[in-house]
Amino acid sequence: MASTSAAGAVVAGVRRPLAPAVAAGLSERFAERYVTSTAVREHHGRDESAFDVTPPDAVVYPLTTEEVAFVLALANRHSVPVIAYGAGSSLEGQLLAVQGGVCLDLSRMNNILEVDAAEGIAVVEAGVTRKQLNERLRQEGVFFSVDPGADATIGGMVATRASGTNAVRYGTMRENVLSLTAVTASGEIIHTGTRARKSSAGYDLTHLLIGSEGTLAIVTEAVVKLRPVPEASSVAVGHFPDVDAAVRTASEIIQFGLPIARCELLDEMTVVALNRHSKLTLLERPMLLMEFHGSETSVAEQATAAEEIAKQNGGEDFRWTQLPEERTKLWSARHNAYFATMQLRPGCRVFSTDACVPMSKLAQCIAETRTDLSASGLTATVLGHVGDGNFHVSLVIDPTSQKEWQLAEAFNERLVHRAIAMGGTCTGEHGVGLHKKRFLEAEHGKPAVDVMRALKRTLDPNNILNPGKIFD
Amino acid sequence: MASTSAAGAVVAGVRRPLAPAVAAGLSERFAERYVTSTAVREHHGRDESAFDVTPPDAVVYPLTTEEVAFVLALANRHSVPVIAYGAGSSLEGQLLAVQGGVCLDLSRMNNILEVDAAEGIAVVEAGVTRKQLNERLRQEGVFFSVDPGADATIGGMVATRASGTNAVRYGTMRENVLSLTAVTASGEIIHTGTRARKSSAGYDLTHLLIGSEGTLAIVTEAVVKLRPVPEASSVAVGHFPDVDAAVRTASEIIQFGLPIARCELLDEMTVVALNRHSKLTLLERPMLLMEFHGSETSVAEQATAAEEIAKQNGGEDFRWTQLPEERTKLWSARHNAYFATMQLRPGCRVFSTDACVPMSKLAQCIAETRTDLSASGLTATVLGHVGDGNFHVSLVIDPTSQKEWQLAEAFNERLVHRAIAMGGTCTGEHGVGLHKKRFLEAEHGKPAVDVMRALKRTLDPNNILNPGKIFD
Repeated sequence: MASTSAAGAVVAGVRRPLAPAVAAGLSERFAERYVTSTAVREHHGRDESAFDVTPPDAVVYPLTTEEVAFVLALANRHSVPVIAYGAGSSLEGQLLAVQGGVCLDLSRMNNILEVDAAEGIAVVEAGVTRKQLNERLRQEGVFFSVDPGADATIGGMVATRASGTNAVRYGTMRENVLSLTAVTASGEIIHTGTRARKSSAGYDLTHLLIGSEGTLAIVTEAVVKLRPVPEASSVAVGHFPDVDAAVRTASEIIQFGLPIARCELLDEMTVVALNRHSKLTLLERPMLLMEFHGSETSVAEQATAAEEIAKQNGGEDFRWTQLPEERTKLWSARHNAYFATMQLRPGCRVFSTDACVPMSKLAQCIAETRTDLSASGLTATVLGHVGDGNFHVSLVIDPTSQKEWQLAEAFNERLVHRAIAMGGTCTGEHGVGLHKKRFLEAEHGKPAVDVMRALKRTLDPNNILNPGKIFD
Repeated sequence: MASTSAAGAVVAGVRRPLAPAVAAGLSERFAERYVTSTAVREHHGRDESAFDVTPPDAVVYPLTTEEVAFVLALANRHSVPVIAYGAGSSLEGQLLAVQGGVCLDLSRMNNILEVDAAEGIAVVEAGVTRKQLNERLRQEGVFFSVDPGADATIGGMVATRASGTNAVRYGTMRENVLSLTAVTASGEIIHTGTRARKSSAGYDLTHLLIGSEGTLAIVTEAVVKLRPVPEASSVAVGHFPDVDAAVRTASEIIQFGLPIARCELLDEMTVVALNRHSKLTLLERPMLLMEFHGSETSVAEQATAAEEIAKQNGGEDFRWTQLPEERTKLWSARHNAYFATMQLRPGCRVFSTDACVPMSKLAQCIAETRTDLSASGLTATVLGHVGDGNFHVSLVIDPTSQKEWQLAEAFNERLVHRAIAMGGTCTGEHGVGLHKKRFLEAEHGKPAVDVMRALKRTLDPNNILNPGKIFD
């Protein structure tokens, strides 16, 4: 694996020296908030991907947008790379300093600047985490819906166009950010958009930055949408004879137009892993974990309709509950799936895939992928946000085994091409980072990727913003 | 007014000659689909704005994306402007050939290439109109939700980031386009996005093109989202003692989290105009026209909740119905508001404003705007998509009166700055075109507009794509 991540670094370009003028300028401005110790640099040179640590040359902790602008203006004059860092929970090597440079740790920019529950917006600094925000909103009757599992920062979620379990009803970061404050490569502070719910005033810079993985500008503040806490919520669990029946159920629920809030598939191996990790006693069969939001009446109506569809597909033991403690227990278990999977083989790492296909192709895509998985001999769980057509195969890989790494890479390559052939994407929510770069042209075609490259060159002529990510 | 539109043309740059090589090349390739007659050129040199006709030098009618690519490659080599044309229903002068050039009339690219009701998508050529698409979908159990009133083309709606009455529930074009096929200035065909519901694979070119008004690329095909036809729909009408009470009702309905599908304000003058134009007998008081979608139960629940809120704000004669003929009659009348307004002063033209503000500022913004309107002495109707914070003052202007035009411009200028000061936008759904250019920096700040300009220069270095629109 060492050689694989080393290969990634080579493809992503050569390490650039940290210009002495940049080191001196940052040290002077940031004093003890400029850190070059090995421990801190190594902590910032990794994420939740299986790649090896690739540390930056220095870490700075800005407190304001103006400080971020100072760093960028200085780094840009000397062509020094700058990588924004939030909670370190990205999954595709986005945070690795493959060309060296400065890590801009935004975790201290964690002020919730404004909450306007009546308007349904919050203004937050980039380092605010989603759980921190929801904690603050607890008494306000509103919540921030995007839920990627990890307690990521809002800035990081903007960068990767994150989504998660609630996206089927409330959308991804694409649908939940109203406007951004960001700093360009040259250190200019820009504001994209207003607080109006819609606008036709010029180019959509907000959406250009969402999903740009810190390669076009660095986001320092966001105006995010909040949703009213529903009058009633219920969680439902259904067990199925096989994965295909569960996926068909999810597809039919969506086609039926049921406004389901969450619709998660867990294959039998995921359930085994969760039972072990979270000490649960779930039936060890493929399962749908669902949530419904609405009025008391509508929640009951939705659950009944979902049960009907599940039964027609052979679903059994359909149970639904409105008890908050039961709800929390099930969703906490679901959110631990990543770590539960890792513990299936202690000492191993998780190599996560992220295909997303049209709903009508999902059952076929998952079926073919599971056949492929069986043939590969790899250990993995399959779970997914199946209401969106997105699923993850979490391969548990021995980091010392070159063979397992190669098998995983080959498996993922087949999966990505299968998804693209079905009209889908190589990444539904994790982003491109280092790991999906080679699929970008297969998915979008060369002319579209050339346009993306042209935008990158225009907005970052010295290639200082997270260089080596998304493209080489 | 002639001098005002002439002033617009001057600001938008000088007319460029149609290079003989372009004329010859187009004539050869398009034969009778290349037209230079005065009548056809003049027809293509106007839209629904109050600006004077500014014709292109020629009109071509492509039938395929490849033909569009041929036109652009040729025009680009000779720096000849190209303006895409759909239904001619834009409102801000987007279609005026202020620098001359070729009008690309896409109305013959009107094939619905695919409908997949189960998946909830349609693939359409840019010249397909929204009514044509919904007619085709009539038996499919799905509909295309974006409804700007006019029977615009999908390509035109993409270009202006259009929205309309259904946006409060189903979103604008921003939320209803999955991917695009477009042609760049140099004639490259690009595909943006896949058919997956979400993706994190690279920069969001789809949203970069939505709202770019034909200045970054020309859209030739779109994959749009379809929504399930709700089990039940009901329309409700409520009358109010004053506009403020109606707006407060709308705001509270949104804050309450009611999933209202349409929420339109009509002031007393609009109701007067509709009664005259559509021979109705509506109570001539401020009115909310609402629609609810859902199950039978949920529609009744929503209507009851809305009535409750309306009553608390002094609403009277609240009536709701599920009768399709009644629904159609009311919405047809609403869609005729533009023409009904024009007929308040026969021979006059409508100068439409398009401010959109945060919901919490809407009542104040409308109140201040109505006070300003009274003081101005202008004739106008006020109506709006108040669930989104968007409202239009439709000023009825004598085209021969320089004074009225100036009064209208000054009124609009005050309105725009009022909206921007409240965190809103100069244009909620009509776009910038010629008419809102001077407000762009006030709204976004110079650094953000500089980024937009840089993107424009990168993607259209010869400035051939709808030059003079959005910026000078």
